[in-house]
Amino acid sequence: MTSVLPHSAGVSGGGSPERRSLTARRIAELTGGELRGDPEATVDAVAPVERARAGTVTFLASARYAPQFSTCEASVALVSPDLADTPGVATRVVVRNPHEGMLVLLPHLYATRRATPGVDPTARLGRGVRLGADVEIGPYVVLGDGAVVGDRASLGAHVVVGAGATIGADCVLHPHVTLYSGTALGARVIVHSGARLGSDGFGYVFGDGAHRKIPHVGRCLVGDDVEIGANTTIDRGSIDDTVIGPGTKIDNLVQVGHNVRIGRLCLVMAQVGIAGSVRVGDGCVLAGQVGVSGHHVIGDGARLAAQAGVFGDIPAGETWSGYPARPHREALRAQAALFKLPGMIRRLERLIAGDGGSE
Amino acid sequence: MTSVLPHSAGVSGGGSPERRSLTARRIAELTGGELRGDPEATVDAVAPVERARAGTVTFLASARYAPQFSTCEASVALVSPDLADTPGVATRVVVRNPHEGMLVLLPHLYATRRATPGVDPTARLGRGVRLGADVEIGPYVVLGDGAVVGDRASLGAHVVVGAGATIGADCVLHPHVTLYSGTALGARVIVHSGARLGSDGFGYVFGDGAHRKIPHVGRCLVGDDVEIGANTTIDRGSIDDTVIGPGTKIDNLVQVGHNVRIGRLCLVMAQVGIAGSVRVGDGCVLAGQVGVSGHHVIGDGARLAAQAGVFGDIPAGETWSGYPARPHREALRAQAALFKLPGMIRRLERLIAGDGGSE
Amino acid sequence: MTSVLPHSAGVSGGGSPERRSLTARRIAELTGGELRGDPEATVDAVAPVERARAGTVTFLASARYAPQFSTCEASVALVSPDLADTPGVATRVVVRNPHEGMLVLLPHLYATRRATPGVDPTARLGRGVRLGADVEIGPYVVLGDGAVVGDRASLGAHVVVGAGATIGADCVLHPHVTLYSGTALGARVIVHSGARLGSDGFGYVFGDGAHRKIPHVGRCLVGDDVEIGANTTIDRGSIDDTVIGPGTKIDNLVQVGHNVRIGRLCLVMAQVGIAGSVRVGDGCVLAGQVGVSGHHVIGDGARLAAQAGVFGDIPAGETWSGYPARPHREALRAQAALFKLPGMIRRLERLIAGDGGSE
Repeated sequence: MTSVLPHSAGVSGGGSPERRSLTARRIAELTGGELRGDPEATVDAVAPVERARAGTVTFLASARYAPQFSTCEASVALVSPDLADTPGVATRVVVRNPHEGMLVLLPHLYATRRATPGVDPTARLGRGVRLGADVEIGPYVVLGDGAVVGDRASLGAHVVVGAGATIGADCVLHPHVTLYSGTALGARVIVHSGARLGSDGFGYVFGDGAHRKIPHVGRCLVGDDVEIGANTTIDRGSIDDTVIGPGTKIDNLVQVGHNVRIGRLCLVMAQVGIAGSVRVGDGCVLAGQVGVSGHHVIGDGARLAAQAGVFGDIPAGETWSGYPARPHREALRAQAALFKLPGMIRRLERLIAGDGGSE
Repeated sequence: MTSVLPHSAGVSGGGSPERRSLTARRIAELTGGELRGDPEATVDAVAPVERARAGTVTFLASARYAPQFSTCEASVALVSPDLADTPGVATRVVVRNPHEGMLVLLPHLYATRRATPGVDPTARLGRGVRLGADVEIGPYVVLGDGAVVGDRASLGAHVVVGAGATIGADCVLHPHVTLYSGTALGARVIVHSGARLGSDGFGYVFGDGAHRKIPHVGRCLVGDDVEIGANTTIDRGSIDDTVIGPGTKIDNLVQVGHNVRIGRLCLVMAQVGIAGSVRVGDGCVLAGQVGVSGHHVIGDGARLAAQAGVFGDIPAGETWSGYPARPHREALRAQAALFKLPGMIRRLERLIAGDGGSE
Repeated sequence: MTSVLPHSAGVSGGGSPERRSLTARRIAELTGGELRGDPEATVDAVAPVERARAGTVTFLASARYAPQFSTCEASVALVSPDLADTPGVATRVVVRNPHEGMLVLLPHLYATRRATPGVDPTARLGRGVRLGADVEIGPYVVLGDGAVVGDRASLGAHVVVGAGATIGADCVLHPHVTLYSGTALGARVIVHSGARLGSDGFGYVFGDGAHRKIPHVGRCLVGDDVEIGANTTIDRGSIDDTVIGPGTKIDNLVQVGHNVRIGRLCLVMAQVGIAGSVRVGDGCVLAGQVGVSGHHVIGDGARLAAQAGVFGDIPAGETWSGYPARPHREALRAQAALFKLPGMIRRLERLIAGDGGSE
């Protein structure tokens, strides 16, 4: 291994390697829990109970993990009141909800990456680009003519932004993101590596022996506080716009077709596909690999189970599943009946034959 | 916001922000329609009826949108003959097919991005690269040894082209596309951001306690007038080639395995997966999330409904759906029967019990 | 076409265009087969029987291809003993397994791309980056602070490596790969273009009217001899790590959620989605488009058929299929019964009606 002379590269990643440490006393203070054991026990990382070593803080929230807890080497543990006396890690903090306690501790143990404002000398800025205060523009970023970057936004290495696209304040674009022209991000949007926003929708008219491409002049509009997963694709609108509502979170490898409108605070999990012109209400949950065919309406608060295939509108507040998607209870009953059927079918055939066999 | 001094960035996006305007008179001429109202009403954009404002042209093709039309602020509307008297936008052009009318207007209102021929100084060209006339090579493009780029082709920022790959005339490669060595594109191919063409197929032989990689020496051949969506992956062939026929359109996040051959003028929608050595005929339609398992044949003009799981050959001209895929009518009857079953099953069990319970 | 002055671009692709040639005599020696015909017949490429031309070697392993073989123009063919006398290509080598024979020949005909060690002048190296001996770092690569690259590793154009990520010896990263901070690759790992490793998992806690992001501080750990397909995404762990076991092969467009642990020597085919905290044992096969919902356990050696939807644990060694996934035999019986049902259902309804119609 040869060591290379340092010069900063401005790579946005997923959190810096810097760590701080906490004592058990401080952990009890931060989580509002009851300390048992050594108040000076010190940790600088978190770990799950099966793999926790000295110097880490772990948690026990289910009796299922009691065996591993009994031999766990963590220096401190958060434990729920009902499991407060489980044999194991000696220094412990009893808290109502150990999961939430861990979330409280994380920012105290792991520094989030500090943006380093500045424009990398290799970044290419088109005519009339406007940059807000304290933006961070990484190496080899390309900003098209008239692109706008809001205050404190961070663009990772190799991000490409089309002409006239706008990026709100405090956005974070991870490396290799592409925003086509006509894309506009609100504030605090996070876009993961390889996501493509504003690409042309899949629209053709057949004529003269060819699929003629329909021009796509709509935009791709993303609300505040949206997060978009790695390698996800969101097409621009054809005549209308494609719109992602504020606070909605989209996982990896999701496809959102042209003219789709997704409401506020939805969760759209990995590999979901939403065909053109679908409307998704507020607060909906689409689990992994769900497919929604074109032009349907998903009501507010509806939930779609993993792999559901939606070929119609979904009423607000309902949970649907299966292919073709049906109300979840009805789908479960159909599946249960289906798996009883093979054991019955010979007898049923015999019954039918006894019925006269007139067909 | 600080403004940054302009220098061109050559970012290919999805259409420039330039717009032109049209009068109602000119709209009637262009669409061959009958003008009613103010011939001087002027528009510079299109919009759907629900969101059209003054200065836009909209369309009404279905009575379903009559309520929104009645309060629509568009300056001009295209309306179909049967809806010619629907109350709403005053200046209107009556045309047989408002959708087609809109397509006629789009190129008059929205300028398509003009390519700016030239090779960006940051582009890296390998040994023996050949560039056609008037090509546009964007920033940070990397062309491997012996790569060939046809006349007027446009390569967006960060495109990477493997050694010896060839790109036909008038192709458009959006930012971040990768062509591996052994890829050849015909003329007028459009490749969207993040598509990967010519990657190794998934082929291993198990032996000596390991999955040994099968070398992939076949090519990835793409015909004229093909469009390939964002983040789609098309593997090269192993010994044979992978081939996409002319005029076929492929949507986002599609997987095409090694040695697949797709015919002419097919439509392959988002998230479809086509396993190795499948043959797809001409004019087929594969709807979203369809999966086709290896080595099967999809006949000319066959249609596969969304999420269909294909585990056998599909006859030409037929429409199949479901899992496992069956002729669509048969699949629908099976689903209908399935959802009747839960209501019947207790009675059927009782009938069987009355049948003697001999099993 | 204008020719551009050469300068090397270091584009990693899928094999160089260099070829060598072999005589039939040498082919017989290499494959341990019995030569018939002209020992001096010479080939410099392989081809499938349907498309083989003079100068190529093809193979015949199934009587199904005998018609094409009879008119095949290949100069040499590998044929299996039972097909040794099939009319067709005159010069042939009779070998027990023609497929394996072809694999033996490939490296003699096709040179694998030689890495050209060196660091491209446009590569950006962060502070404290460590590079092993004979590494190849392509154009526009960005290495974050403290990243480590093992001996002879090759990083294609535009690869971005987060701060502190480590890459083992002899790894090959194709163009446009992103490794987030917290990613560690073993030795001999191959990562295809556009794969994203170590992105944040999809985890939020709802509170105060918003989905609050759960910090992800776990790592993404990839074992020796893993191959990862194009545009695949593997999330880092939240508190625990995401782990891919040695020798496992992952196809294109696969999603692996946070905290997933996949064992050794698995095959995970295209577009599979594995939700958070799933455990996959050793030697499992997940066929295309399979979905596994969160926290389940897939036992060693289990096999999941294409598009299976897994909503529970899968016992070791079993094959499951369908939605929701069931043991394959049971799923097949249910499907067979289902497709018999429509033909029976009217009669069954009549039988039930005759049963008294008490409902």
